[in-house]
Amino acid sequence: MSEISPGLENVYIKYTALTYIDGEKGIMRYRGYDINELAEKSTFEKVSYLMLFGELPDSKELINFNDSINRNLRLDGYLKTILKNMPENADALGLLQTLLSAKASSEINYKYSADNDSKKVPEILGNVLSMVANICRIKTGRDIIDPEPLNDYSSTFLHACFDSFTKDQADAMNSALILYMDHEIPASTTAALVTASTLSDMYSSLASAVTALRGPLHGGAAEGAYRQFQEIGSPGNVEKWFNENIVNGKKRLVGFGHRVYRTYDPRLKTFKKYAEMLSVTPEQKNILEIAKKLEMLGVEKFGKKGIYTNTDFYSGIVFNALGFPVDMFTTLFGLSRVTGILAHIMEYVETQERLIRPRAIYNGKDYREYKE
Amino acid sequence: MSEISPGLENVYIKYTALTYIDGEKGIMRYRGYDINELAEKSTFEKVSYLMLFGELPDSKELINFNDSINRNLRLDGYLKTILKNMPENADALGLLQTLLSAKASSEINYKYSADNDSKKVPEILGNVLSMVANICRIKTGRDIIDPEPLNDYSSTFLHACFDSFTKDQADAMNSALILYMDHEIPASTTAALVTASTLSDMYSSLASAVTALRGPLHGGAAEGAYRQFQEIGSPGNVEKWFNENIVNGKKRLVGFGHRVYRTYDPRLKTFKKYAEMLSVTPEQKNILEIAKKLEMLGVEKFGKKGIYTNTDFYSGIVFNALGFPVDMFTTLFGLSRVTGILAHIMEYVETQERLIRPRAIYNGKDYREYKE
Repeated sequence: MSEISPGLENVYIKYTALTYIDGEKGIMRYRGYDINELAEKSTFEKVSYLMLFGELPDSKELINFNDSINRNLRLDGYLKTILKNMPENADALGLLQTLLSAKASSEINYKYSADNDSKKVPEILGNVLSMVANICRIKTGRDIIDPEPLNDYSSTFLHACFDSFTKDQADAMNSALILYMDHEIPASTTAALVTASTLSDMYSSLASAVTALRGPLHGGAAEGAYRQFQEIGSPGNVEKWFNENIVNGKKRLVGFGHRVYRTYDPRLKTFKKYAEMLSVTPEQKNILEIAKKLEMLGVEKFGKKGIYTNTDFYSGIVFNALGFPVDMFTTLFGLSRVTGILAHIMEYVETQERLIRPRAIYNGKDYREYKE
Repeated sequence: MSEISPGLENVYIKYTALTYIDGEKGIMRYRGYDINELAEKSTFEKVSYLMLFGELPDSKELINFNDSINRNLRLDGYLKTILKNMPENADALGLLQTLLSAKASSEINYKYSADNDSKKVPEILGNVLSMVANICRIKTGRDIIDPEPLNDYSSTFLHACFDSFTKDQADAMNSALILYMDHEIPASTTAALVTASTLSDMYSSLASAVTALRGPLHGGAAEGAYRQFQEIGSPGNVEKWFNENIVNGKKRLVGFGHRVYRTYDPRLKTFKKYAEMLSVTPEQKNILEIAKKLEMLGVEKFGKKGIYTNTDFYSGIVFNALGFPVDMFTTLFGLSRVTGILAHIMEYVETQERLIRPRAIYNGKDYREYKE
């Protein structure tokens, strides 16, 4: 009898030229470029283009790509109606999943090809920006709008969410969108690949990814880490909390450890920089102080086992400093990840396409007769 | 360097005690019971209970199960609002995916356990009946209603869709719901398992399944086979059409061949019986005649290669005779499959739970420096 592969942990489902990860050395690259270089020096649009199409855009390609995104910022009327009528307790990712599914319902005849995909992708990036911004507006008591295109994706997004923002905030948003853009094939990207492998359209595949992102085992670490800092409450309470909850194993330290990394998560550095740069109010400084003390204790205790701070430890502090409520953090992660998921779908469907259909091993009852 | 497993074709993702398939002998069983025995002698509710909880229900368990389903036939108001406001060209599965996602957005805190699951499942079966019936009503120009509970699931469903139905039609619907209930882990069930493995809620997992079901490589065979009969037009045209399209390889014969079976699909027999029983109008008889002639030619040509008629060849004829428009066929398949998907989720999460996270093999560029 064959064996099952639990969680598909050692199963390779596709080839990829997108993201290279060296978990021992703490290296991560998109198509060969170091992610911190990209996060510091490049823009979301350029890196998206790089991921989707293989090379950085020249100036004309970049203008066209931006224009296509900007032409698609206006949400369809029925999507606005849905947003307005959803129950108050609906979570942000649930709203995104619903909007993507509704949008997908007019995409039934979508045909994958390098040509169609290159037109569809900026349309989706525009629509998703608008979906997430309007979800944020609803969650913060604002009205639904059509985002106004500014110079770049991050500025357009922050402006759509909050009407105003600073240059530093736009830079931080830009870096966050780049750093979270792809990370090989976690459960959400896997779900999208299964869906796309049936040649179901791209919006459906993204909706599929979001269904997985919502699971507590997958997308919620930035939110979890931030809530942990809130629970601790003050820098003076860190050591006591750590001893009472982590040292004796009562709780897991959220934002520490990663299936892939045996050292610091390479994305951490840039998030930590922005966390320090943007924490200006007493409350923000308080949370940052808690985080830094907690990180020190965590590294002291777990570092020798190869368990270090991961990227979600500081990203929530950045998102908070940008003005987002805690229950939007995972949705922001989802917004960043859209490019990576679409790039994986294109890579899979355009070059390695095969319906994903694993098997199960029957271990149940032998034949028995049915009696009334 | 490791190899990838294309389409996960020979990868075993879980153990299952649900469906046993012998593709050589054309045998298929649910928890040990032959599916044709179940389809002829049992009811959707009993077989659902069997699949979900392991054994057929006693009379008290059956009453409770039915009551729970019937208490959940009323769609939430916001779901009705969504249905009313979706674009006219939205496809039926897209609508189902949207409603499931919207419903999921209030399920963010769902905790899997044998106890919670056993309460949640009949709630979902009630809701999904109402969703699909109302999608059918919208697609056939009817108004949205709250289904009235009748004696059994099939009758409640047909009544909700069409306001009236015959005993034979209810029997056929009951058999169809049973025969399509599960088939191990095709792409749709796999997508649901990936989502559920993150502990995302059951509605989200079903939405994930529907995103995959919508793909042209997966769920649409009953519709495709029926449209093929319509294209042929008359029994007198079958041989000419077959020679011009199939013999010379221009088209694929839809409703023939199956990855698993080397003989007749065991589910075919009962569908064929109902196709003959329910085809009464001249148009229905015409389509049935076309199908039977086409089947003869197909088996003559492909049978020696182990390619035989599959279940989707006749199921569309049954669905049509029940009154459903062609573009509802895949959604009816989806309705039947809900039990199987939920049973697989329960089996996986309750006993074999592990986050599904396969790997990709990097075959891209080495390090390159980023230049402005």
